[in-house]
Amino acid sequence: MTLSVNLNADMGEGFGAYDIGDDDGILKIIRSANIACGFHAGDPLTMRRVVQRAKEEGVSIGAHPGFNDLWGFGRRRIDMRPDELESLIAYQIGALQAMAAYAGEKVTHVKPHGALNNMAAENAEYAMAIGRAIKTVDRDLIYVALSGSEMETAALKLGLKLAREGFCDRQYEDDGNLTSRKIPGAVIKDPAVATKQVVQMVVEGEIISRNGKRIPRRVDTLCVHGDEPTALALSRAVREGLEAAGVKIVPLTEMTLG
Amino acid sequence: MTLSVNLNADMGEGFGAYDIGDDDGILKIIRSANIACGFHAGDPLTMRRVVQRAKEEGVSIGAHPGFNDLWGFGRRRIDMRPDELESLIAYQIGALQAMAAYAGEKVTHVKPHGALNNMAAENAEYAMAIGRAIKTVDRDLIYVALSGSEMETAALKLGLKLAREGFCDRQYEDDGNLTSRKIPGAVIKDPAVATKQVVQMVVEGEIISRNGKRIPRRVDTLCVHGDEPTALALSRAVREGLEAAGVKIVPLTEMTLG
Amino acid sequence: MTLSVNLNADMGEGFGAYDIGDDDGILKIIRSANIACGFHAGDPLTMRRVVQRAKEEGVSIGAHPGFNDLWGFGRRRIDMRPDELESLIAYQIGALQAMAAYAGEKVTHVKPHGALNNMAAENAEYAMAIGRAIKTVDRDLIYVALSGSEMETAALKLGLKLAREGFCDRQYEDDGNLTSRKIPGAVIKDPAVATKQVVQMVVEGEIISRNGKRIPRRVDTLCVHGDEPTALALSRAVREGLEAAGVKIVPLTEMTLG
Amino acid sequence: MTLSVNLNADMGEGFGAYDIGDDDGILKIIRSANIACGFHAGDPLTMRRVVQRAKEEGVSIGAHPGFNDLWGFGRRRIDMRPDELESLIAYQIGALQAMAAYAGEKVTHVKPHGALNNMAAENAEYAMAIGRAIKTVDRDLIYVALSGSEMETAALKLGLKLAREGFCDRQYEDDGNLTSRKIPGAVIKDPAVATKQVVQMVVEGEIISRNGKRIPRRVDTLCVHGDEPTALALSRAVREGLEAAGVKIVPLTEMTLG
Repeated sequence: MTLSVNLNADMGEGFGAYDIGDDDGILKIIRSANIACGFHAGDPLTMRRVVQRAKEEGVSIGAHPGFNDLWGFGRRRIDMRPDELESLIAYQIGALQAMAAYAGEKVTHVKPHGALNNMAAENAEYAMAIGRAIKTVDRDLIYVALSGSEMETAALKLGLKLAREGFCDRQYEDDGNLTSRKIPGAVIKDPAVATKQVVQMVVEGEIISRNGKRIPRRVDTLCVHGDEPTALALSRAVREGLEAAGVKIVPLTEMTLG
Repeated sequence: MTLSVNLNADMGEGFGAYDIGDDDGILKIIRSANIACGFHAGDPLTMRRVVQRAKEEGVSIGAHPGFNDLWGFGRRRIDMRPDELESLIAYQIGALQAMAAYAGEKVTHVKPHGALNNMAAENAEYAMAIGRAIKTVDRDLIYVALSGSEMETAALKLGLKLAREGFCDRQYEDDGNLTSRKIPGAVIKDPAVATKQVVQMVVEGEIISRNGKRIPRRVDTLCVHGDEPTALALSRAVREGLEAAGVKIVPLTEMTLG
Repeated sequence: MTLSVNLNADMGEGFGAYDIGDDDGILKIIRSANIACGFHAGDPLTMRRVVQRAKEEGVSIGAHPGFNDLWGFGRRRIDMRPDELESLIAYQIGALQAMAAYAGEKVTHVKPHGALNNMAAENAEYAMAIGRAIKTVDRDLIYVALSGSEMETAALKLGLKLAREGFCDRQYEDDGNLTSRKIPGAVIKDPAVATKQVVQMVVEGEIISRNGKRIPRRVDTLCVHGDEPTALALSRAVREGLEAAGVKIVPLTEMTLG
Repeated sequence: MTLSVNLNADMGEGFGAYDIGDDDGILKIIRSANIACGFHAGDPLTMRRVVQRAKEEGVSIGAHPGFNDLWGFGRRRIDMRPDELESLIAYQIGALQAMAAYAGEKVTHVKPHGALNNMAAENAEYAMAIGRAIKTVDRDLIYVALSGSEMETAALKLGLKLAREGFCDRQYEDDGNLTSRKIPGAVIKDPAVATKQVVQMVVEGEIISRNGKRIPRRVDTLCVHGDEPTALALSRAVREGLEAAGVKIVPLTEMTLG
């Protein structure tokens, strides 16, 4: 039996005259694109272009909703009422669905952005608000959730399709949480180390913590980055390493999700 | 044979802490609601609430997209490239579709707001850009177009469902255009005069210009306003006058459109 | 010797087509206006109008900066880096100074809005960031700070003019903090009770907690509200009660501040 | 007698996570910086940084206000009421003054951005609205106006300091207007041609139209660009050519303005 995993990345995060990230470079590596929806980044025309480009590369399309904070690029935590947050998410998914219609494509997953993703991983109210938005707009949408987080719990509780996400370039603690960025070595820069970690995750179904502890952890999708040349190189190495280990890289829509 | 006409009004034009207009009052009079989509007015939570209220009153739901100009309430003319404008419209329609999902409702028409509506009435490029957005997102959406305008031409050219719109409270020139607001009497304030005008439009299929000329003009929907107590009273009078003349007031979805 | 105190209120919180609050009503009661600066509320033209109206009533002018969150009306907590927050505040003060030039007036105080005010009361980094912005733009600006809060500490540390603020319509705990709104009775609705509390604060220099404990607490300015008819009535009662007790109501610029 | 001229460029047009243009490169060439004020581009922290960098290079500081249209980068024409436009400009100038205080600098000129600059060149109401904003906020501010435009007329009418602006990289018609970009050759790409044109402008006080006609035209400041490597190279060539012709490149504040 062939093992499969998905690679996803954030895309379409320019805005008007502004460009950011190497969308064309990362599209050659990933199989699923998280497309900014006009709140933390992205604009209607950019969304339309990126959907078209993803289609051309056979990459599946997801909404990447964020806080309404272009200045902060969605990286600032904002305290919202859950009903407001839920509406914010539903709105952005719907907007991307319309832009996907230009390419005759469907939006097939949702992954929150930045501070929203971090808050939803820890906060059950946020995680559920996102899940309810997904369920209302299209119950077939896949909820991309940090493996082991409140988002995973929310997706299961709501009966949504769930893709558990792991990190290529971050160390883990013994309890399965990410090591704080403040601790030296927390961010993995060496493509060989990153590759070894993800192959372990996908082939063995476990994470090795920075102290050497084995933590069982299912991972359906790995988040990669293309915002810097070194990130792009690491992403490419991860992909090649997985393929060398016999793992097939597929769109989220081709994964068997639990 | 019973004559039918639709009454439409703009709704959901509050934003966050701000309220504007008497949505509950106008919902008792109209049969189709043009719901602001978050750009010139409206926010995701307001959209969700207004869709629900419209459903409760049996009022059909339309997108009311506007320019990205909350400060100007969408009343300032903005020169955009047609592809940008088209994307702007598609985005807003999609966003409202998502919010309509909360009520299990479908968006069934599109009517541009304010300065965008005025520009699209005169400018074929704008009218076509709006039409292409409609056609891409959902070709069954009804394009509400000022009767005799470039929007009407665009809808016909694109093979879209078309609802020709007339005004209750504005005088017309001999050529069928609206009399400029700068001319005294251009805005009709007397409910009796407004009622007489719309009954003539609907029953006889013609407009009487301010100089007394008869202009054949098909009208499927009449725009009413609820933003002031006097506007609400005039709207109510128009509805009652139409009903007294044997005209049935129906949602856009029940009109036979050409 | 005559006792003096200031009454302040938030104003100019409309935006474009949207109105909120009874600015004209509250202007007759207060002596210092906190004017929204275009981020959580307010727009350039509104700011200009409100400055002019304040001048006509002999009311001193302050900046009321808030988070960049019109949808949330500045009531959502946002985590910002202190240097970003400081720049955000300085920007808003400068913008109001320009609008004040239209009336030949000077901005003479700064009071943060909503969630920003709440965060700065508790968080020394936020309180200091606001203080540094004040000091940079105009070191003569009065920092209006919740009495006993981190803002008070920051103002003293930076050597800024400080106006300690008290509440008319809120109960206090034994430790001098405000009673949580979740506790019944925390918000005072009875004009007589509010009046008694503020006269005690101003004349005796102390707060009586809801358990009856006397807490020494200096108060230079009292925050009143005009956003609802009952709030306006309570504000008026407070003013009349203070005057009946021989207290003079003066602009912040006429207070002797410590 | 030594001839002098100013070189100006737009700067600080990034926003949050987004960068655009080579501010450091262009700062080595120009003597006056037009700094974006947060509406079409720029944010409070960027403004603060750019003011500091300009000061370090001995470059004088100006406000570069634009329409409230980040998506369109201020390049879309927007129809505003003159009183709204005036307030928009005053607000942005004041905001930059506050950020300039961080470097202990003063804002000394104003140059509108993009579509606003184009509209104000043709439209007396816009040109006067900008002039009134300048006059109200600080009557010593220099109004940078396209030579021969409605802005020049407005500045003279209002008694403002005026810097007449010329173009390095655009051809002119016989009537002194810029040749439309639609005409081949309208945009000058050859550094030698650009240099010859500006030396003629500054030394002879005249423009040679593309048909060879000599048009007397006073020019105090030349607009250069740094948004592309070729633009930066052309700007550098223009500066070197002027210096080789004995022209001194000075800040606007050192020009003798009429």
